[in-house]
Amino acid sequence: MNEFDLIARLIKHLPANDGVVVGPGDDCAVVDLGAPDHDVLFKTDAVVEGIHFTGDTPPELVGRKALARCLSDIAAMAGAPRHAVVTLGLPEEFNPATIEKLYAGMTTLAAAHGVAVVGGETTTNPGRLLVSVALLGVVAKGRALLRSGARAGDAIFVTGTLGGSLAGRHLDFEPRLREARFLADQLPVRSMIDLSDGLAGDLRQVLRASGVGAELLESAIPVSRAARQRHRDGLTSKTPLIAAFTDGEDFELLFTLPAGEAVRAKDLFRAEFPDVPLTCIGKIIPDTGLKIRGERGLREMAETGYAHFAKN
Amino acid sequence: MNEFDLIARLIKHLPANDGVVVGPGDDCAVVDLGAPDHDVLFKTDAVVEGIHFTGDTPPELVGRKALARCLSDIAAMAGAPRHAVVTLGLPEEFNPATIEKLYAGMTTLAAAHGVAVVGGETTTNPGRLLVSVALLGVVAKGRALLRSGARAGDAIFVTGTLGGSLAGRHLDFEPRLREARFLADQLPVRSMIDLSDGLAGDLRQVLRASGVGAELLESAIPVSRAARQRHRDGLTSKTPLIAAFTDGEDFELLFTLPAGEAVRAKDLFRAEFPDVPLTCIGKIIPDTGLKIRGERGLREMAETGYAHFAKN
Repeated sequence: MNEFDLIARLIKHLPANDGVVVGPGDDCAVVDLGAPDHDVLFKTDAVVEGIHFTGDTPPELVGRKALARCLSDIAAMAGAPRHAVVTLGLPEEFNPATIEKLYAGMTTLAAAHGVAVVGGETTTNPGRLLVSVALLGVVAKGRALLRSGARAGDAIFVTGTLGGSLAGRHLDFEPRLREARFLADQLPVRSMIDLSDGLAGDLRQVLRASGVGAELLESAIPVSRAARQRHRDGLTSKTPLIAAFTDGEDFELLFTLPAGEAVRAKDLFRAEFPDVPLTCIGKIIPDTGLKIRGERGLREMAETGYAHFAKN
Repeated sequence: MNEFDLIARLIKHLPANDGVVVGPGDDCAVVDLGAPDHDVLFKTDAVVEGIHFTGDTPPELVGRKALARCLSDIAAMAGAPRHAVVTLGLPEEFNPATIEKLYAGMTTLAAAHGVAVVGGETTTNPGRLLVSVALLGVVAKGRALLRSGARAGDAIFVTGTLGGSLAGRHLDFEPRLREARFLADQLPVRSMIDLSDGLAGDLRQVLRASGVGAELLESAIPVSRAARQRHRDGLTSKTPLIAAFTDGEDFELLFTLPAGEAVRAKDLFRAEFPDVPLTCIGKIIPDTGLKIRGERGLREMAETGYAHFAKN
């Protein structure tokens, strides 16, 4: 059983209460804590040495990444982040100066987004550093953007370029908070997710939650320079296109809106964020499944077997 | 530098915002999220294999403890817990049945206290299981009980009996949520903390935050049976009294209120919770420091050197 199957089993029978607006399974939980005009977004996440960073990663970037991942989840709901608490799991031997740098990286990013860090705990985690962050955000009541809102006929957009995040972007990405709130304010966005596990996997989450399928245009996928460079340099066996579909940690936004709004979305977004690419990569269709239209016609992209897909 | 010194340095320069009511340094953070009649309590904590439990600990109790520790912090502010999110750090090899039992232990306790578990993530933590919980609670606006409210002349109370938690209590304690809310509702409680690091250390946190000192009566300290038994069995070199002062993870409440209310507090509490001991262990004094009155008069209990104190 993999981790996804395990989570799916675990979250089936969780206790709820009357304050739960959106329970497990979206980018953040949405809860009602009594504010008349907004809901509260709630998220926790952790980064672990040897998994999300290495012993050589500058500690400022470790702290930054730990918070940035959670910020990206708040962005994906079109929320505004507010308060964070942090637990450090420290190896037996730790250098206080390293931990201070880690905090400096985190708090600089927090301050840039108006986030107060309101609690810090430590525990021992023998053998490796671990940073767990919990984050609260707010969103206008009933306006959180969910994965489940995609409808047949929607255009599918992604911000930025995809793949090759390991070349560096996974450590210094800017969470798309402003972009997400702008889109939610200006356009009839129906569904949104942040790309943390790769385009193919994360889009499937939207399709599953919405009960629809998608048809993507292969030539439209905005493959990153890093994905091409890593392929040229022999650092990965993935083609750049497959990297764009399957590399994790892009932390870009994927969203859908009615196709009739697609041109307006492009124009409005370009005027506000001239340096951030925004690409329409395909459309939502009624039939479930993920299809890719390429030079050789329309192919189904299976849940597994990306290598096979690449050779087709 | 120990962990306490490190935290003290880290929390000096954390970013704040206008929603922060109580920042780092109390049992929970207190934030204003726009509800007209209450504040929000926010806490995160983690338990780690080999530190807070062993590979032999029944997984139900691991999950239970991970949540119960956070619940105890909400109790210490006299709050009501509402929503939890969980991150599991899984070793490379994990047994799905074990994780399901862990969740069952956590969710049973959550349901008993009306807590919704609204999110579950997993990550890899090679070598050992780690469970990180973040918890939200609510408390009537301005009514969170802080560590900083103790005043000279207050009587100091503790619930339950202290020491020897390792014999089992650390895994199956009942967070004192109902007791804390009852006390806050019925009595002019001035300060409160939960005993997680041991009576001496946690009381010192109250004294430091309040700018006062304390004089305790040695014969009044409610030493647990487990602390006596562990001493008799040769499982610890600590005398039972020193265990009551320094063993961690009692998860009892320590609180102070005006001495004139002490008898009423005892009577009201006994009527409501006949099975929970409540003991007045001393009083708050203007001079800083922690003094113990025993058979041989009044002694100062130094910040370190409990062993020396024990021999005095």
